[in-house]
Amino acid sequence: MLDVVDITDPADPRLDDFRDLNSVDRRPDLPSGKGLVIAEGVLVVQRMLASRFVPRALLGTDRRLTELGTDLDGLAAPFYRATAEVMAEAIGFHLNRGVLASASRAPELTVAEVLDGARTVAVLEGVNDHENLGSVFRNAAGLGVDAVIFGSGCADPLYRRAVRVSMGHALLVPFARAANWPADLNILRDNDFRLLAMTPDPTVPTLADAVSGLTEERIAILVGAEGPGLKEHTMRSADVRVRIPMARGTDSLNVATAAALAFYERDRSHR
Amino acid sequence: MLDVVDITDPADPRLDDFRDLNSVDRRPDLPSGKGLVIAEGVLVVQRMLASRFVPRALLGTDRRLTELGTDLDGLAAPFYRATAEVMAEAIGFHLNRGVLASASRAPELTVAEVLDGARTVAVLEGVNDHENLGSVFRNAAGLGVDAVIFGSGCADPLYRRAVRVSMGHALLVPFARAANWPADLNILRDNDFRLLAMTPDPTVPTLADAVSGLTEERIAILVGAEGPGLKEHTMRSADVRVRIPMARGTDSLNVATAAALAFYERDRSHR
Repeated sequence: MLDVVDITDPADPRLDDFRDLNSVDRRPDLPSGKGLVIAEGVLVVQRMLASRFVPRALLGTDRRLTELGTDLDGLAAPFYRATAEVMAEAIGFHLNRGVLASASRAPELTVAEVLDGARTVAVLEGVNDHENLGSVFRNAAGLGVDAVIFGSGCADPLYRRAVRVSMGHALLVPFARAANWPADLNILRDNDFRLLAMTPDPTVPTLADAVSGLTEERIAILVGAEGPGLKEHTMRSADVRVRIPMARGTDSLNVATAAALAFYERDRSHR
Repeated sequence: MLDVVDITDPADPRLDDFRDLNSVDRRPDLPSGKGLVIAEGVLVVQRMLASRFVPRALLGTDRRLTELGTDLDGLAAPFYRATAEVMAEAIGFHLNRGVLASASRAPELTVAEVLDGARTVAVLEGVNDHENLGSVFRNAAGLGVDAVIFGSGCADPLYRRAVRVSMGHALLVPFARAANWPADLNILRDNDFRLLAMTPDPTVPTLADAVSGLTEERIAILVGAEGPGLKEHTMRSADVRVRIPMARGTDSLNVATAAALAFYERDRSHR
């Protein structure tokens, strides 16, 4: 039986998971894994409910409670029902999306765990922007990538902004952080993954040519930060370097867009 | 001879093109075409210098003046040189990029003008987010799209944020606004363009199948806003509906990402 609790006082300590969300968002403990994971909006809350992140509490308007409906069946956490005004005062700004859920961080998965059963994985290095990271997860989910692996220098995929931009897919697409970088790329190699490193170098094979020859193989697509790209040492650990054909006079694409093109090409060669 | 003018007083009226930039950015006259176009950073200023938008003035630090170097040869507008502190006080915030250029809006091009010589164009409807619009221009430039046409409901491509996200390509890739929408799609048809409408409908041909059959044709890729997509009336005006194959359980991609995949597929089928 869903536990709906009406809250009329914005200072009610039961709302503390959601208090001053903009400053929580900047809390230094978040990236280190001590903070909470926050889902915003009906769609992202639904994805959290379907994920390995178990909600501690929900806070929302009556309208969003109704919209979530049977999705909340079996929910053990309380649903704190409040007006938009009470919510705004507690969280520190007006939230159009009207509903939030908090969860503790689930235990981190290992690289070996996320490779299990995967055919295509994305490997990121130096992607330190939460919005780009969120976009990579959204693109991975939409274009059939099974897991994401973080090398060095990446932002926190469970940061509120990353989760929001990912449309909740940061909670669903399995990810792991490489404990040793780039040495852990050997775990992929030991699991018969072919490592493709994306580069703007115009002398290497195109994505299309490289991927079409690997239809039956497990592949890992390595993407570096916009600007510097993959580090030379990482590049040397890859099996093949690949490029997106670019018009003359242009610079590289946004990192999440470049990744999307690689995911698309891989997915395309499977069909 | 480059006219370098040292400015030490942030209140100097010669800096008025750049004053309180964040509020200029919100000025209602900008989208209507009366405002200025602002380029930020060395790369985007370089692209403005190469574009049809003629600078009225530049404002930057000595370091950025040096970086621009011979790019400024022949510049008729003055370069106002100031410290980062004076700049910050005039424009209202600290600008990491260190240099700005202002230009009046060039006369708008017509749909017929931007189609001249084009083989691939993007047609947008309801793309009312400046960041997405900027990304579409960046992707268009990188992936070989010759022009962008705006149907109804699109944001202003010359808004400061759009220009910045486009990496200056909003100043270089020709664009036009359809005066009559969607009736002006007939101008494309009269110019032998095949109109491809993007939709998440899983029953229509994939992008790859549709585009590979049109290698020799001029094509226009119609993209609607994330969420609602193209309006039904617009959809009916197209020659063929196409989709990006998506993994089950996911929603549509970000509009600029979906456009990038279409541009990539078109470019791919040309090679």
